[in-house]
Amino acid sequence: MNIITVSREFGSGGRELGKSLAEHLGIAYYDKEILHTIAEELKMDEGYISRKMNSGYSRSVPVSFGKTFAGLNQVEDTVKILVEQQKILKELAAKGEDFVIIGRNADVILQEYEPFKIFVYAEMESKIRRCQKLGKDMNELTDKEMKKQILRVDKGRKKNREIITSAVWGDKENYQLCINTSDVQIKTIVPATAEYIKGWRGN
Amino acid sequence: MNIITVSREFGSGGRELGKSLAEHLGIAYYDKEILHTIAEELKMDEGYISRKMNSGYSRSVPVSFGKTFAGLNQVEDTVKILVEQQKILKELAAKGEDFVIIGRNADVILQEYEPFKIFVYAEMESKIRRCQKLGKDMNELTDKEMKKQILRVDKGRKKNREIITSAVWGDKENYQLCINTSDVQIKTIVPATAEYIKGWRGN
Repeated sequence: MNIITVSREFGSGGRELGKSLAEHLGIAYYDKEILHTIAEELKMDEGYISRKMNSGYSRSVPVSFGKTFAGLNQVEDTVKILVEQQKILKELAAKGEDFVIIGRNADVILQEYEPFKIFVYAEMESKIRRCQKLGKDMNELTDKEMKKQILRVDKGRKKNREIITSAVWGDKENYQLCINTSDVQIKTIVPATAEYIKGWRGN
Repeated sequence: MNIITVSREFGSGGRELGKSLAEHLGIAYYDKEILHTIAEELKMDEGYISRKMNSGYSRSVPVSFGKTFAGLNQVEDTVKILVEQQKILKELAAKGEDFVIIGRNADVILQEYEPFKIFVYAEMESKIRRCQKLGKDMNELTDKEMKKQILRVDKGRKKNREIITSAVWGDKENYQLCINTSDVQIKTIVPATAEYIKGWRGN
């Protein structure tokens, strides 16, 4: 069984790499599908879940706010989402099929399946250019605003991970391969990355 | 022109990877040859140079020791070696041939040639087993002593690097590819690593 987890800095092209890897290897690819399933199971909005996962769990939570418990509810939602995510990922892996999965701390949650763990990163300049190229709703932002957004998302990813593991997000020790995509066209490195994983699996 | 620099944790198999990569690509390989040339140029003992490069520059140097300047001489030697090393590496690169080079901060010294920079690392357990397998003079050591030795050498490499650059040794941001060789047979990952570099050069 071949599970490949792709953790990535925002704007590093990790998603593109993961998707292309799955296509190259002819195996399944999971990304937003997980979000969709969580939303269905918890009857929450997908956008809300996405924002929660990118904003990070706050350690300094207001337990009561006036007579409501808004702050606590917010934290509860984060925990609920993380628990549901864990359940879905484990069910997915239990099916025994090969797949590539983006983010979602799958590298930690699916550790027992010995996934091949990739971390994708890049210089800030490169990440800003990649975001600009992809456009979408970030197109309106200045470089400075974009940098702030990139750092914010990555901080959120790091913080949410802290709830479930002491293995720090982005520390190279926690991955098999760390790929710097600064000024790299992702498609040029896909075949060799796939070959690398095959070689590694041969051990 | 294709320069590949391999930085590595002691016991990670980085030297084997670099040597095999050079063979696979059919290009030159430099490692102890550099040490040999420095020794000749500076009329110093090769073993002494090797120890200096693995022991790290001390920030708290005794400037005078009695009436001698032993401490200062020690530091002067380190600096002399580093300067000579820099000169030799630049002369080597200026020839224009492709090569793989192990350590020696070549990734920083040869930055203008845009080398492909690899960092090789592994879990401590794996490094100890690899050292035991290689044998040599470390065979007499207990696991605990071996761990101490591994940490000492890596600390020295990190410290010597501080003299010439702020780009921290082992920080993934300073390399194109970081390879975790825990429980990996090096030969299984050589062809894919070579392919990866070719893909990356295609950008």
